[in-house]
Amino acid sequence: MKLALLDDLRTQNPIVFNISNFVTVQDVANGLNALGASPIMSEEPAEAGEMVGLAGGVCLNLGAFTQAQIQQIRTVGQQANAQHKPLVIDPVAVGAVQYRKQVATGLLADFHPDVIRGNAGEIAALADISWQAKGIDAGEGAGDLVAIAQACAQKLDCVVILSGPTDIITDGTRVVKVLNGTPLFQVHVGSGDMLSSIVAAFCAVTPDTFEAAQTACLVFAAIGQRVVQTVPDVGAGSFTVHLLDALQSTTVAQIEAVAAYE
Amino acid sequence: MKLALLDDLRTQNPIVFNISNFVTVQDVANGLNALGASPIMSEEPAEAGEMVGLAGGVCLNLGAFTQAQIQQIRTVGQQANAQHKPLVIDPVAVGAVQYRKQVATGLLADFHPDVIRGNAGEIAALADISWQAKGIDAGEGAGDLVAIAQACAQKLDCVVILSGPTDIITDGTRVVKVLNGTPLFQVHVGSGDMLSSIVAAFCAVTPDTFEAAQTACLVFAAIGQRVVQTVPDVGAGSFTVHLLDALQSTTVAQIEAVAAYE
Amino acid sequence: MKLALLDDLRTQNPIVFNISNFVTVQDVANGLNALGASPIMSEEPAEAGEMVGLAGGVCLNLGAFTQAQIQQIRTVGQQANAQHKPLVIDPVAVGAVQYRKQVATGLLADFHPDVIRGNAGEIAALADISWQAKGIDAGEGAGDLVAIAQACAQKLDCVVILSGPTDIITDGTRVVKVLNGTPLFQVHVGSGDMLSSIVAAFCAVTPDTFEAAQTACLVFAAIGQRVVQTVPDVGAGSFTVHLLDALQSTTVAQIEAVAAYE
Repeated sequence: MKLALLDDLRTQNPIVFNISNFVTVQDVANGLNALGASPIMSEEPAEAGEMVGLAGGVCLNLGAFTQAQIQQIRTVGQQANAQHKPLVIDPVAVGAVQYRKQVATGLLADFHPDVIRGNAGEIAALADISWQAKGIDAGEGAGDLVAIAQACAQKLDCVVILSGPTDIITDGTRVVKVLNGTPLFQVHVGSGDMLSSIVAAFCAVTPDTFEAAQTACLVFAAIGQRVVQTVPDVGAGSFTVHLLDALQSTTVAQIEAVAAYE
Repeated sequence: MKLALLDDLRTQNPIVFNISNFVTVQDVANGLNALGASPIMSEEPAEAGEMVGLAGGVCLNLGAFTQAQIQQIRTVGQQANAQHKPLVIDPVAVGAVQYRKQVATGLLADFHPDVIRGNAGEIAALADISWQAKGIDAGEGAGDLVAIAQACAQKLDCVVILSGPTDIITDGTRVVKVLNGTPLFQVHVGSGDMLSSIVAAFCAVTPDTFEAAQTACLVFAAIGQRVVQTVPDVGAGSFTVHLLDALQSTTVAQIEAVAAYE
Repeated sequence: MKLALLDDLRTQNPIVFNISNFVTVQDVANGLNALGASPIMSEEPAEAGEMVGLAGGVCLNLGAFTQAQIQQIRTVGQQANAQHKPLVIDPVAVGAVQYRKQVATGLLADFHPDVIRGNAGEIAALADISWQAKGIDAGEGAGDLVAIAQACAQKLDCVVILSGPTDIITDGTRVVKVLNGTPLFQVHVGSGDMLSSIVAAFCAVTPDTFEAAQTACLVFAAIGQRVVQTVPDVGAGSFTVHLLDALQSTTVAQIEAVAAYE
């Protein structure tokens, strides 16, 4: 776990190109900005190559998209591979919606992700493991979460982040668990999408995607946990506000003081 | 008025499928989430049937949409009818923009809403009653608001919510007025859209749409009023933040203590 | 500098029609609403003429748009000219992305803006002056910012606002500098888009666009500065919340007390 990557990120201010779904895009942009990265967004194929060229990392969110937008996601994913830019995928609701799983499976045959971040239901679906997902939520299942994450990582040959009360990060063999966090992340719809883009920002400052993925998870989870510990009576709305403040102001030393991982 | 429906909602955590306009979609998702429902959004026709199948209630917002998106709204509305899912319509700006009234009239011939929620200008337009609307705002008119709401409900054979300083809820004959609220709802552009989706969430936990509609209005108005009463110097920005916190934390007993309706 | 225009705006409550990019649209709508204007948004060409007719001012944001949306922007821009409504353009990222500069140049041949607002990189690009832009950020350059703003204003025959730590407002000859502000504007992605729409709101209450532009900049910058001076420990997230509150509550006298311009 290299927490110093956070200082590198704040010094280098990497550009992250996001295809973010329209529900959470503003939170994603503000979250990246607050942490110290620079967000760019675009839905126009004609500028896809140029946007990827500007970026240090690319994050593709597969939620809430039309077929025209899916084609744009394909173009950007292939451009990221061709230009050797780190590529993070967030497969929103592939566990609950059969159509989305088909779309995601098709896309993952057309480009190669460096990191996939999803909840248990989403990662299980991509690994073809049975799971009871519920809408955009993780749902419930009896499976071994570590085994599910490893199966997905091996199948798709990438780093997998299985987000939940405990985040599981694996490259298919090695496993890191981040124990920090707060249930308030679940109450704020943009949390997962924000984390996915932050993973891309960390990938922009180190070639080691496994290191980038686990550090991003620890930074995000620890900062969220500190918000709940330091702000009295924080709730669904104020959590987001304080999270953005804390993404901007929390130091590596403050994160180290609460960091819990294994 | 069955305030216990709020506890049912929080226990059952119903999925609400929203076609929300791009201006307010994030607020709508966060508002549903904070209250205890689970939001899903989609603009893709290919997953419309599946999304409706997952949902306990459907809310269609008619604001800020292109012709392709209107077609998607038609598909989802028809799916909601076919799958017998409660359907709430929010006819944004049909009172001010002739084109929007044409679109809404066409859509309402193609599917049947269970509830329509709008401001005075919007409900008057759907009832073909003269009114001076102003942009997305209610505007001014001399009509009897109860008569306007009843005429709209009778014409379209559904429950109508006419939102304003006093909310009027009617099934065409019976009328309930919710007297709670605060002028700050008008300063926050997402308030109306948020309420419409919350109505759909309440419809998901009771088959009595008239009961669901009035309870949703009372819960939302009373929670907003309590924010203004409990947070000093709350304004346009902080109101939204505290409203989300309060949607999550306010109890039935706290609502009963301020509830004002007739 | 006519700060009394703010009182006029709050009295007249002008409708501002915005084509806002999907990243910041909610902030723009809430910002206009908080200040005292009335926002309307639309992406549908069939209602473009009607929307322009309702509006006292029009603001076109050129960020994050598809080719279909660019066509809509062209239609609305031409309608604004034809209906003699003041037209503000925000040329997002034309300094960093070659494709966007091509699009903007094409659009500016098809309609005439009354005001263009951008950062140094964007204004330099439109003036064909060399500058090192970075993504959506201003970037760095050695040029004389006043000369760049004047060159752009002369070339495009309009008022130009070059936003930055010091805002430069010029009609090509006359120059006003607004010295108020706070670095927190840069941390919040919606700040620039919000200011552009606020400029359109001021243009709706006076025919003097140079006066409207400079007053809008002073009002926005001074209100942001007061937030930082009056709210302890304000950061990336809470700044937005307090900015919306302050847009609603700050008086002309309070702005005059901190106003710094030359």
